[in-house]
Amino acid sequence: MIYADYNGSAPLHPQVATYLKQRIDKGPYANPNAIHSLGQKMLMGFEKCREICAKALGADSTQIIFTSGASEGISQVFHSVLTPFSQKKNIIISSNIEHSAIGHAWEYYSAMGYEIVLLDTKASGVIDIENFKNTLSAHQGKIALVNIMAANNETGVIQPFSELAKLCSAETIPYFSDTTQLIGKSSFHFEESNIDYAVLSGHKLGALPGVGILIAKDPLSLKPIIFGGGQENGHRGGTQNYIGAETLAVALTSVLSEEEQTQLKITKDLKENFEKNIKKRFPNTVIIGEDVDRLPTTTLISYPGIHGQAVQIELESEDIFVTTSSACSDNEPETSKVLSAMDINDDIGRGVIRISMDTKSDQDSYLKLEEALIQAYSKLEKIKSY
Amino acid sequence: MIYADYNGSAPLHPQVATYLKQRIDKGPYANPNAIHSLGQKMLMGFEKCREICAKALGADSTQIIFTSGASEGISQVFHSVLTPFSQKKNIIISSNIEHSAIGHAWEYYSAMGYEIVLLDTKASGVIDIENFKNTLSAHQGKIALVNIMAANNETGVIQPFSELAKLCSAETIPYFSDTTQLIGKSSFHFEESNIDYAVLSGHKLGALPGVGILIAKDPLSLKPIIFGGGQENGHRGGTQNYIGAETLAVALTSVLSEEEQTQLKITKDLKENFEKNIKKRFPNTVIIGEDVDRLPTTTLISYPGIHGQAVQIELESEDIFVTTSSACSDNEPETSKVLSAMDINDDIGRGVIRISMDTKSDQDSYLKLEEALIQAYSKLEKIKSY
Repeated sequence: MIYADYNGSAPLHPQVATYLKQRIDKGPYANPNAIHSLGQKMLMGFEKCREICAKALGADSTQIIFTSGASEGISQVFHSVLTPFSQKKNIIISSNIEHSAIGHAWEYYSAMGYEIVLLDTKASGVIDIENFKNTLSAHQGKIALVNIMAANNETGVIQPFSELAKLCSAETIPYFSDTTQLIGKSSFHFEESNIDYAVLSGHKLGALPGVGILIAKDPLSLKPIIFGGGQENGHRGGTQNYIGAETLAVALTSVLSEEEQTQLKITKDLKENFEKNIKKRFPNTVIIGEDVDRLPTTTLISYPGIHGQAVQIELESEDIFVTTSSACSDNEPETSKVLSAMDINDDIGRGVIRISMDTKSDQDSYLKLEEALIQAYSKLEKIKSY
Repeated sequence: MIYADYNGSAPLHPQVATYLKQRIDKGPYANPNAIHSLGQKMLMGFEKCREICAKALGADSTQIIFTSGASEGISQVFHSVLTPFSQKKNIIISSNIEHSAIGHAWEYYSAMGYEIVLLDTKASGVIDIENFKNTLSAHQGKIALVNIMAANNETGVIQPFSELAKLCSAETIPYFSDTTQLIGKSSFHFEESNIDYAVLSGHKLGALPGVGILIAKDPLSLKPIIFGGGQENGHRGGTQNYIGAETLAVALTSVLSEEEQTQLKITKDLKENFEKNIKKRFPNTVIIGEDVDRLPTTTLISYPGIHGQAVQIELESEDIFVTTSSACSDNEPETSKVLSAMDINDDIGRGVIRISMDTKSDQDSYLKLEEALIQAYSKLEKIKSY
């Protein structure tokens, strides 16, 4: 099997699996808020996880809030920055390539009175900095929040998030970047990035599902959306998911280790070689965001005129699992809104499949993938030509 | 070791531990929203968990929303019922024995304009039905929400939640009962209970931390607090915590099995015998809620004049882990507000320790506990008398 849907969700990282199996038998289990020494031990372990994650992410441990995942983090940032509604600052600047979780937040806050200004990208998939600057100027003094993601889940295209953050910072506009896809696959240092709020999901990194992190430059600016017993310094209620946090600390440590960072470079080379070979064999194919900085593991490729879902099914018959867009919009038949924002036509748009590989992929996987994709396209282009 | 803080958090249930260890190696892992067959398999497994949990809880599977835990469920109920603020129905009726997560919700909603009417209990720890009826009458037509828990986390006292629910139902007042401590330890059937909203946390039942359930009689009344990609029928965003849900389905199935229900009855007898023996040996001791229906696993006991924390430390030196109140208020030196609501004096209040045992406790554990508590009280009453 080749699992090529890491952007959707990663299997447990091998080191996490090993850790967890030992952890299950060894214990301990207790409420980290309990007065007894077992509870205190849990709390110390949990705080140690926070420190490990903080260090891995270039943040201070006070800036790390453990959540249930990126969607919760996103929701909390919006709630923290945007309530109560202020008539004076009623503009949210975002983009048409955001994850659907953000789309649902827009609906809620536009009903509250906010105006959402959505930017398209350049044809490359990258936000146009000049356009961004003009938009900031056009709404000067009225902007409540800017939220533009760091790396797109469908195309893998990396946005100039630090540059955008600096522009916002200069005008003291809160800047939130959805870093869910970037972290672990491309270098990230929260403090250096100048971002005000960032989020991640453990399951994208090989930790257990149901745990994530919200990083806040100024944690005091946060308002809880989950009330509780004062956990997470009052920023997030609920008994701490200490096992989730432990798996996240193990996953982040592994992913950012020198060894895996070296493997990531190899993956990048393998991917580029794979893309080159496919394009050579099928010159009609289009690789979305080909000429710009992308996640080293992601290929969004289209053979115009061949439906992406047909390709996905062909690959699946070879035990290779890809998607046609992001998991959350997979069932929509049209060109994804991300590709529309890049002004990509329907012929290409309907043809895409997303291949998102393990950061530690080997040559064999990419060779098998290449072979299977060549076979699929060869078969389907014949059918197409009838 | 005797772990006697199950009300704080339960260790992984043995069956969950067995399941999880196999599950880690076997997989699969995928995003349940993905188009490929692995994703579909995950989704089917996840929906199967929902059915299992629904059946165990006496609810329809459409009424089950998977959350990150009870605190999230509590927060979502408040948000769903209380926003937007309505001047017409601006009263929340609750009690002084609720969990601190609810206390934080009150703060938020009273700042919004709601008036919180808090009921004390009778000396037994049980809500006074007559007082409750009078309160409903006094605020007729103005009540937005009633929230009174099902079983108290400190005392274990079980409230007449079905009776309260019926009174509310008759006047179409939404009734939310925090059932976190009750479920698994006492019989519960959502539909028969007449409750509109109930919640639970997996970690109280031996599932992984970081997963829970919100049960809603009318799920369409829910508004999400976590935006996402439309998961949970739009009621709760974020990639589903499928591993958490699996452990919860295993835990609930085990806890509610005939075998464990039989063990629970044995535990109840052992506990009653233990309490009787302690009272016989130390006639000064007070068992909170002694004469009313309590969780079969919980004993809140005080030796007036001997500080609870001293007892807790003595027991800990014998490798027995109890708390002085609930985990979330353990560090407060005063009599807990739950005991104040029962009009219990400080001399008793400061003396309490909470013993909350496994639902499948054996005679040996209770004998050791009895011996250790007798030893602790004997030692501490000597010091006290100097």
